[in-house]
Amino acid sequence: MGLSGTIIENRITYSMAKELIGNVLVAQSGGPTAVINASLAGVITEALNYECIEEIYGSANGILGVLNEDLVDLAEESQQNIRGLRYTPGSALGTCRYKVKNDVDYERILSVLISHNIRYFFYIGGNDSQDTAAKISKLADTKGYDLRVIGIPKTVDNDLAITDHCPGYGSAIKYVASVVREMALDHAAMGQRKQVSIIEVMGRSTGWIAAGATLAKRRGHPEDAPHIILLPEVPFSKDKFLEHVQRTLSTKTFCVVVVGEGLRDEVGNYVSASHDHVDSFGHANLGGVGDYLKELVSKTLGIKALSARLGHHQRCAAHLSSLTDNQEAFQAGQAAVQKTLEGVSGKMITLTRVDADEYQCETGLADLDAVANGIKDFPLEWINEDQVSLSYQFSKYALPLIKGQVEVPFDTGLPQYVTLEMKAIEKRLPSYGLE
Amino acid sequence: MGLSGTIIENRITYSMAKELIGNVLVAQSGGPTAVINASLAGVITEALNYECIEEIYGSANGILGVLNEDLVDLAEESQQNIRGLRYTPGSALGTCRYKVKNDVDYERILSVLISHNIRYFFYIGGNDSQDTAAKISKLADTKGYDLRVIGIPKTVDNDLAITDHCPGYGSAIKYVASVVREMALDHAAMGQRKQVSIIEVMGRSTGWIAAGATLAKRRGHPEDAPHIILLPEVPFSKDKFLEHVQRTLSTKTFCVVVVGEGLRDEVGNYVSASHDHVDSFGHANLGGVGDYLKELVSKTLGIKALSARLGHHQRCAAHLSSLTDNQEAFQAGQAAVQKTLEGVSGKMITLTRVDADEYQCETGLADLDAVANGIKDFPLEWINEDQVSLSYQFSKYALPLIKGQVEVPFDTGLPQYVTLEMKAIEKRLPSYGLE
Repeated sequence: MGLSGTIIENRITYSMAKELIGNVLVAQSGGPTAVINASLAGVITEALNYECIEEIYGSANGILGVLNEDLVDLAEESQQNIRGLRYTPGSALGTCRYKVKNDVDYERILSVLISHNIRYFFYIGGNDSQDTAAKISKLADTKGYDLRVIGIPKTVDNDLAITDHCPGYGSAIKYVASVVREMALDHAAMGQRKQVSIIEVMGRSTGWIAAGATLAKRRGHPEDAPHIILLPEVPFSKDKFLEHVQRTLSTKTFCVVVVGEGLRDEVGNYVSASHDHVDSFGHANLGGVGDYLKELVSKTLGIKALSARLGHHQRCAAHLSSLTDNQEAFQAGQAAVQKTLEGVSGKMITLTRVDADEYQCETGLADLDAVANGIKDFPLEWINEDQVSLSYQFSKYALPLIKGQVEVPFDTGLPQYVTLEMKAIEKRLPSYGLE
Repeated sequence: MGLSGTIIENRITYSMAKELIGNVLVAQSGGPTAVINASLAGVITEALNYECIEEIYGSANGILGVLNEDLVDLAEESQQNIRGLRYTPGSALGTCRYKVKNDVDYERILSVLISHNIRYFFYIGGNDSQDTAAKISKLADTKGYDLRVIGIPKTVDNDLAITDHCPGYGSAIKYVASVVREMALDHAAMGQRKQVSIIEVMGRSTGWIAAGATLAKRRGHPEDAPHIILLPEVPFSKDKFLEHVQRTLSTKTFCVVVVGEGLRDEVGNYVSASHDHVDSFGHANLGGVGDYLKELVSKTLGIKALSARLGHHQRCAAHLSSLTDNQEAFQAGQAAVQKTLEGVSGKMITLTRVDADEYQCETGLADLDAVANGIKDFPLEWINEDQVSLSYQFSKYALPLIKGQVEVPFDTGLPQYVTLEMKAIEKRLPSYGLE
């Protein structure tokens, strides 16, 4: 259960900032992960250490809760609940995909923060959230309101700029790789008839999650599943894909294909049965590429094909989350509080890999602006020449992130998680009327 | 990690049978489960105790391996491998869905058994396998060849007759219920916009697996997910389904629907996009009912809907298997060997629930014929009047089956399983030429 790497606290030191007395507000945004609540627990646990922090509030449903003044008192939560957050999946405060619309929205946010004497604002989220945090920070500066804003990274997609990796990613790929390894044993047993098993995984824009499936291969067993990994970065070619399937089946009884939901063809269109939905950020609502490939294989090659779509379980399978990921998420929350106490604002906490033989990770800082709406592309040089497998460099990068198991308590056979009480803070402003 | 129930060895005693000296053959059949290898380990471990058992062979790929004389020497496997079988998913010997065709096939099977002096034959499988075992047993009787045949139950579908439940089922529903519980936390966090989450689970003919999802509800929380369970036993009505969805969403922000893949409409047709494939047993090759419901909800109600198809991971997620299920599977294997040594033949090992306050399970015996091609229907009286939820009687039945966690070893972040060496036994007969 031990971790081979350890987290070393960021050694950059700041001159002691003047003490700022006031309240903390923390919010969660975007899709949940298996460890986003560990970051929340990190913020709460650390904030309790400082006398200048008077109250610790949470916002219900991300920035929407700030706009609607739906704040809750986290100090009222039991110790048991706060401890339980460390392994509970989902976003315990609720989250949102609300895109802050205009200056009126931002003015309202600042009014809410001011009216509750919020001096420390922590926003746990992906790039859209870091953008929102950056704008709040700037507006407070402009208005001369002393507010320290720090973003805490979170995304299973692992596509935030600057940070070496994102809390949530390690657990997502530990899950995907475990599924592949277990399903491969099932498929291997069915040796009588050749079959192709398609596993569709998350990853709208990048192949970070699909690539992680390669960790299912045992060391020294390149022939292990997954046999074909289709990344959104590599334009899909039917012919080449079918060729790879046939090559795999020439020596094996089954072929496991892992495909990222965002797979695109040579002209950049999504490869899927349907792509007529777009969410409020303009992201295409994907799904169906697994079924498309299943049909393609069975119709074209006449070989039995199966497809599974792991769905949101990829981002919430906390019973199988990575201890490394979990601890880093917690420490990112702690570091955020520590930094604001040192006077830092307008930054996002990053995870930095120490240049050492053994994996070590430190926290660092990046400008919110530099992270906002940026994307960390998957390094194309980590894709092998065959375009359907990953190089050793990728495994070297990803393997430390899945190490160690989180001990989730079980009761009557099932993992036991916590739900926050969410005791509401009295509102002080007129309603904003958002839903 | 403790079990509340314990396994008490079957107390029925048989007069000591005459000692039969010879070899053991064990085979696995049908779809693997998370614990079918535990039964195999039970057979091997127990068989090692008896001097009259000379060799312990396995058949590669079920009955197909017997027909092709593809036998392997299990005594050659390392202790580590045999121990590892206790938690390794898949069917380590390989399995098949080959339907023994005619008397020629059965004569061949008997020839292979005779030529290797097999006196004890154990077949771990579902109802088709028990049918095969019954016929082999009868043929041996007819020919005057002293052969003891015992079937060992296995199926995630839990639909074998006579036995209280089947090894494999407890682990499958522990997995499904855990997925529902974790996904519900994820969905609950996304409170901003109503959504319907469809989770498609296995269950071709019966709703045993779909029903198991109800265990995800915390005690005293009937409002917990899953909110709607669609069983193949209840004819599907679009209108009633959509009504249930709307009723759930009138008080909640999300609605989790668990649907068995074998859902049928009022005239008995499968509810799914496609059902044009049939396997070699005449079973329809299903899939797609989840996507069908997703479309139905989003098109008819205009509500965001997601669908996940858990696929074969339901039957091989050994990292989350039930300790109760695992131990019972092992003990069923042991009991099979013990019974043959007592002279029993032509039977299947059953699991019998002791009438006691605390769950207790004993092994028993059933005639192979009575099990073969029978089906244990899901008790309709366990379905509530609303037709989309399960009564307390079901939870009382199912809850003990998921208790306890199996400790699977992890290495570099992933569960570590074993693969058998499968050292081939020299063939003694001409080739039979099956593929």
